[in-house]
Amino acid sequence: MEGISLYYLPYHVNVTIVFKGHALPGTFFIIMGIWWTIKCILKYACKKHKRTSYLGSKALFQRIEIFEGIVIIGMAITGEWTISVFWPHLALYDYKEGQWVELLSWHHFTMYFFFGLLGVANVLCFIINSLPTSLTKLMLSNALFVEAFVMYNHTHGREMLDIFVHQLLVLAVFVAGLIAFLELFIRTNITVELLRTSCILLQGSWFWQIGFVLYPPSGGPAWDAMDHDNIMFLTICFCWHYALNLIIIGMIYAFVAWLVKSRLQRFCPSEVGLLKNAEREQESEEEM
Amino acid sequence: MEGISLYYLPYHVNVTIVFKGHALPGTFFIIMGIWWTIKCILKYACKKHKRTSYLGSKALFQRIEIFEGIVIIGMAITGEWTISVFWPHLALYDYKEGQWVELLSWHHFTMYFFFGLLGVANVLCFIINSLPTSLTKLMLSNALFVEAFVMYNHTHGREMLDIFVHQLLVLAVFVAGLIAFLELFIRTNITVELLRTSCILLQGSWFWQIGFVLYPPSGGPAWDAMDHDNIMFLTICFCWHYALNLIIIGMIYAFVAWLVKSRLQRFCPSEVGLLKNAEREQESEEEM
Amino acid sequence: MEGISLYYLPYHVNVTIVFKGHALPGTFFIIMGIWWTIKCILKYACKKHKRTSYLGSKALFQRIEIFEGIVIIGMAITGEWTISVFWPHLALYDYKEGQWVELLSWHHFTMYFFFGLLGVANVLCFIINSLPTSLTKLMLSNALFVEAFVMYNHTHGREMLDIFVHQLLVLAVFVAGLIAFLELFIRTNITVELLRTSCILLQGSWFWQIGFVLYPPSGGPAWDAMDHDNIMFLTICFCWHYALNLIIIGMIYAFVAWLVKSRLQRFCPSEVGLLKNAEREQESEEEM
Amino acid sequence: MEGISLYYLPYHVNVTIVFKGHALPGTFFIIMGIWWTIKCILKYACKKHKRTSYLGSKALFQRIEIFEGIVIIGMAITGEWTISVFWPHLALYDYKEGQWVELLSWHHFTMYFFFGLLGVANVLCFIINSLPTSLTKLMLSNALFVEAFVMYNHTHGREMLDIFVHQLLVLAVFVAGLIAFLELFIRTNITVELLRTSCILLQGSWFWQIGFVLYPPSGGPAWDAMDHDNIMFLTICFCWHYALNLIIIGMIYAFVAWLVKSRLQRFCPSEVGLLKNAEREQESEEEM
Repeated sequence: MEGISLYYLPYHVNVTIVFKGHALPGTFFIIMGIWWTIKCILKYACKKHKRTSYLGSKALFQRIEIFEGIVIIGMAITGEWTISVFWPHLALYDYKEGQWVELLSWHHFTMYFFFGLLGVANVLCFIINSLPTSLTKLMLSNALFVEAFVMYNHTHGREMLDIFVHQLLVLAVFVAGLIAFLELFIRTNITVELLRTSCILLQGSWFWQIGFVLYPPSGGPAWDAMDHDNIMFLTICFCWHYALNLIIIGMIYAFVAWLVKSRLQRFCPSEVGLLKNAEREQESEEEM
Repeated sequence: MEGISLYYLPYHVNVTIVFKGHALPGTFFIIMGIWWTIKCILKYACKKHKRTSYLGSKALFQRIEIFEGIVIIGMAITGEWTISVFWPHLALYDYKEGQWVELLSWHHFTMYFFFGLLGVANVLCFIINSLPTSLTKLMLSNALFVEAFVMYNHTHGREMLDIFVHQLLVLAVFVAGLIAFLELFIRTNITVELLRTSCILLQGSWFWQIGFVLYPPSGGPAWDAMDHDNIMFLTICFCWHYALNLIIIGMIYAFVAWLVKSRLQRFCPSEVGLLKNAEREQESEEEM
Repeated sequence: MEGISLYYLPYHVNVTIVFKGHALPGTFFIIMGIWWTIKCILKYACKKHKRTSYLGSKALFQRIEIFEGIVIIGMAITGEWTISVFWPHLALYDYKEGQWVELLSWHHFTMYFFFGLLGVANVLCFIINSLPTSLTKLMLSNALFVEAFVMYNHTHGREMLDIFVHQLLVLAVFVAGLIAFLELFIRTNITVELLRTSCILLQGSWFWQIGFVLYPPSGGPAWDAMDHDNIMFLTICFCWHYALNLIIIGMIYAFVAWLVKSRLQRFCPSEVGLLKNAEREQESEEEM
Repeated sequence: MEGISLYYLPYHVNVTIVFKGHALPGTFFIIMGIWWTIKCILKYACKKHKRTSYLGSKALFQRIEIFEGIVIIGMAITGEWTISVFWPHLALYDYKEGQWVELLSWHHFTMYFFFGLLGVANVLCFIINSLPTSLTKLMLSNALFVEAFVMYNHTHGREMLDIFVHQLLVLAVFVAGLIAFLELFIRTNITVELLRTSCILLQGSWFWQIGFVLYPPSGGPAWDAMDHDNIMFLTICFCWHYALNLIIIGMIYAFVAWLVKSRLQRFCPSEVGLLKNAEREQESEEEM
């Protein structure tokens, strides 16, 4: 079965593969989004209580970054491996047929490859001291922009609904990349970082939604790709995904803030409270 | 009369409902625009006279923010309630007919929901101390971007004039959202905040204009949706709305500045005057 | 001859009017562009020699700003007056014919009106002390964005060449507005200001080019509006206009720098030289 | 053979000329991209070891900048010269035929001219002390934007594949110009500069790719300009070019960092090490 294309497989197998093809990156982005949200809130909370637990947290965060990089590399390799399972011979051009082979899979491969580079940069940055730490942000921005670019050119010649759901995905990815890009230029605060993670969560859950819309796993009929009402519904569905993600981030915030507070108060209740009030006032002044 | 659509109602009722559907958000945005203008100028004037009346104004502003949040939540709930009055059963999909129900109303609902989140964030931010105060700005930016996104996808398959007036609305909303987004990154000054409120005022008055153009309340004939001259006129009409809003903001500025000056001079005339001159010179230097 | 339209006039008169309609704003923008270039370079040179001539230059610049504001108001009124000369009755809608009257003239009127607001803001800002000085930058940005918006909607239903030359104009105006907008957010340097004035000069000279392309004053035949080669040529013509403007700005820079240097060296040669070197070194360090 | 057009030449000569027309700028951009990468990393490494070798490196960098400017001017003149070799009479308009002559060559000429201005600015900036050093960044941004503008208008009326590969080129050029433009406003770090050089390297290698796609030098048949698969492939090909350029930049970084470290450690091993650690910690704190 050399050079077999997905399009020659029976419908059921095809649906399963493509649904997984959307569910897998969706799951990865949801995991990374939640993890980055937690890390970002933890850093914010620890920074507020800087003087009490400085040295410990610093070495800890460095180890966490390296671990994060390894996990990202693992995800990228898993993603590339799932592609090659259904696609045994790494051929790009079929000289016999005179046509390109599996271009859509190569698209996914390219996307995973840039996230793999992000993982490598993450590991290198915290092992080698002389590298600038903003390198990880650069690679994240690059990975997201490349993903948006690939996804934008993923749907040439498909139907309206298919193009629309991918365009919404590109929107979420591009905004996440734009924020990471702006973070390169300007010193940012926790709000901007949470905005970025909310966009990454959004793309994760939207990947799942695309899977359900285009390849219903229940085996039911696909959506009518030419119905304007479906597009109108998906517009608000996208907004509801975002609202849900914002609420999830809010709940994570509440949980992490409570955790940090309760654990720190056990050791040094009075001092932290004083520091917090002082910092809080200073911040409010700046904000005003 | 389950699942009744607006389009089955007699023309007169339909016009009234849809005109109100544009007049209500228009009124909300005008009120919020004027209020934010006043608050922003008040803060600027109070900051100039910081040392004389610092403690009092700070607690006052905190209470004002909470009140503002409650008002925004009230507006969002009112908006959602007016939709459901004409639309009794909160159904999204009619399984008998096999089609979506009231998608345009759900669009408005989504829009109001995100402004409701802004109100909640406003209240939470000034009750809970550990939350970053830039959260309200983030939620404002989100609410405006979601509104622009929904409005942009609101007019699939309608006529040229209808699309054009909604595009101008999207322009005003998007610019307001963009400024709020940039305010997240960069410490801003009063000019930028007034620019944002002017865009919000503009969208408020433009909502009214849309109501008059698409559903003339006088009962007269609707505008010719295919006439290029109408589009040419609405282009300059949009600019005149903006010019009018700028003049209104200028008048509010003059009034508030006069009020603050006259009230402060009664208590401590000499000191404030000196401070003002000193600060003014420093500022001019920076600007040069 | 009530409500007479330009389109009913004989061809020769029409050409003269419309050529003047492009030549007049073109001349205004060239004058303002050159003036802002000179002012900006003068300020830069004076700031470098700050300590030696501080007090004198400051009062001088304030008077210059007020004068500049009055000149801009004068230009705006002149522009509006030239429109109304050929257009005696300030009517917007002809109820007898049931159609809009002179919409293109009202477009120009709107454009001039916003530049008039810029002039008013310029005067007010330097008379009233409590106004933030960034207000003039805001009004400049507004005036340019409104001009770009009006010009973009100026050519509905015209021919390809006509639309293309106006699009290039919109590009120049929009970039100038964007730079003025960014200057609101970020403290800028002389390079950015010169970039903005170069865009304003570009739009001035491009207004003239539009006049020559669309309404050749020699009375020769108009350009072929459907020839792709004409568009290809106008693309590079636009770049050459820009190159010429850059060279003119360079020459102004050389002249003003020489003037300031020669006049200052007469009074205090040694001290200035020392200051300059010290500042220069500091700057180079920062740039590196 | 007056006014001879490329299109009248035999196919083989035509292919050679046009392939060279893409290979020459491609080579220039690759050389400049690699050189800027090296310079930028060298500066970063030298800045880290500032105190030990400050005076020497400063004068050196100034001389390097002047040399760089001369090289850029040389490249621009070479580029313009290769055009005029195949195009003897510098005519723009053929009055006999009544049509424009060699507009595509004039496009290339304009592009080279702005890079020539960049070279001139580079030389002037480091000879004349009173010029702001950000002028070179402005001229780089201008040159790149003009190139993007010209390339965007280069393909009126051509085929889909031709337009697509040029659009990707415009994307790379525009992003490089945008980063240079943002660098005017905001103090940047090494990561942003490396991002810019990676975009310049990308456009260099993509120029070569365009040459191979549109005018295969092997003399084989051209690509099918209407095949969607070709566009799909070129999308990922563009990403792979970028990935390759990132890896090349990483290798340059490693080599230069090793070179600087090994040469500096020979002279002052202990002191530098201490400084590095101190700076590193400070930086990490800021990043956190």
